[in-house]
Amino acid sequence: MKLTGFESSSTVFKVVRTVTAIGLERIGLVKPGDNVARLLIAALSAESIELIDGDIIVVSQKIISKAEGSLVDLSTLTPSSKAKTMSRRTKKDARLVELIMRESSRILRASRQALVVSAKNGFVCLNAGVDKSNVNGRHVYARLPKDLDGSADHLRTDLERLTGKELSVIIGDTYSRPFRVGQVEFAIGISGLDPIVDYRGSKDLFGYELKFKYVALADEVAAAAELVMGQGSEGVPAAIVRGVTRTRRNVRSGLSKKLLLGKKLDLFRKLL
Amino acid sequence: MKLTGFESSSTVFKVVRTVTAIGLERIGLVKPGDNVARLLIAALSAESIELIDGDIIVVSQKIISKAEGSLVDLSTLTPSSKAKTMSRRTKKDARLVELIMRESSRILRASRQALVVSAKNGFVCLNAGVDKSNVNGRHVYARLPKDLDGSADHLRTDLERLTGKELSVIIGDTYSRPFRVGQVEFAIGISGLDPIVDYRGSKDLFGYELKFKYVALADEVAAAAELVMGQGSEGVPAAIVRGVTRTRRNVRSGLSKKLLLGKKLDLFRKLL
Repeated sequence: MKLTGFESSSTVFKVVRTVTAIGLERIGLVKPGDNVARLLIAALSAESIELIDGDIIVVSQKIISKAEGSLVDLSTLTPSSKAKTMSRRTKKDARLVELIMRESSRILRASRQALVVSAKNGFVCLNAGVDKSNVNGRHVYARLPKDLDGSADHLRTDLERLTGKELSVIIGDTYSRPFRVGQVEFAIGISGLDPIVDYRGSKDLFGYELKFKYVALADEVAAAAELVMGQGSEGVPAAIVRGVTRTRRNVRSGLSKKLLLGKKLDLFRKLL
Repeated sequence: MKLTGFESSSTVFKVVRTVTAIGLERIGLVKPGDNVARLLIAALSAESIELIDGDIIVVSQKIISKAEGSLVDLSTLTPSSKAKTMSRRTKKDARLVELIMRESSRILRASRQALVVSAKNGFVCLNAGVDKSNVNGRHVYARLPKDLDGSADHLRTDLERLTGKELSVIIGDTYSRPFRVGQVEFAIGISGLDPIVDYRGSKDLFGYELKFKYVALADEVAAAAELVMGQGSEGVPAAIVRGVTRTRRNVRSGLSKKLLLGKKLDLFRKLL
């Protein structure tokens, strides 16, 4: 591990604007029924890290799915005839296709790499978030938690109760994107902070008004967390992101919906 | 500014995996002809920060455009008849439309909010990166630097010469995305590090092989940097991102092309 080099220059933190992402490496394997808040607190304690007001806790979707028992052994599924047809076309296991179909409100495209779907949570994504990585059992897959924002709310209130601090929680997942190669971590469950910073009407350096600018802060926080979390095989399923300014406290439920862009408003529609 | 709270627990850095983004607030206004490397070194020195091997320097596209004089006063442009037609349809200044058209290889869609184009650098984006924010002069717009990776290469080699360290440079810009609300910072010019981490063939926690996983690390670094840079009006046009692992040194030119997803490979094609 590369050290940050800041150990001996702590005053630097006082004059510069700094955001730090700290990966929690001591969480261990998560099992159905585990209390994620308690696992996080134990991992933090093992690293002698105390949460402070404003901390954003980013957890991978996978550990929430595991803790909630959102795991499916393909051998328990009987594929529908529609799943079988799509399975032949995509060369995927028909039971996997069946599972993806159950998690989707609509299948948009089927290819050998992935099914592109509108998932039940409203987001367009690959395979409805159904994923094999870091799940034990040859035919066991994780599906997304049923209510991602609800899971985030639950984790936030648990952590706030256990620590007495004002916190936010983001459940992150790796997302494939149109137009650009590679996946990045985005926020799919959010609690405690407004996911968007609205710059409309604010002024730039020269006093001109910014007309069209919303920053998806929650997605950027998730991306920053991925830099320390990796893809799970590294065993770092959670991170603390500290020092983010521009956050606005928001404890309403269903916050990830704010990131959901309807087809009608999507400037990129019909362009691919 | 919220402090990180780590000042008194420096040993924490030794056991946790940490990535830090440090915003450089003392760069000041950048003018055509300015040497960005020297401005960065001066700003770092003013903050008593020394670069170390592996640091990634993220700069906003805007200051590179300014330093390179990539600014256009609309009053110097005569719109073509095609630009005039499109201007009526979009209710945009015909000269602005003219400028965007000159920066594009193809106009894909015109709406009142933005023109969606295939920019000359190959990326699908809004308004070909032509932007007013933080540019002085009522009718003066910045366009993208002609050769973004070239500008990044130039800045990296300058910084490496001045510091003797092995560094990377990412030029970041805010990007609107299909399917999701809000903009995030992505990498549009890259030098020194491979923008993609290829996980194919590597094993997960349980020894199963990851089949389809490329992480767009450069985009995540740009997003992390935006958390401290903001949208320019904050006067923080650059950041140091420190502690990123999984980077692979790559000093070939044209690295941002690796993030360019061809239409044929785009799983989301025809879906919007």
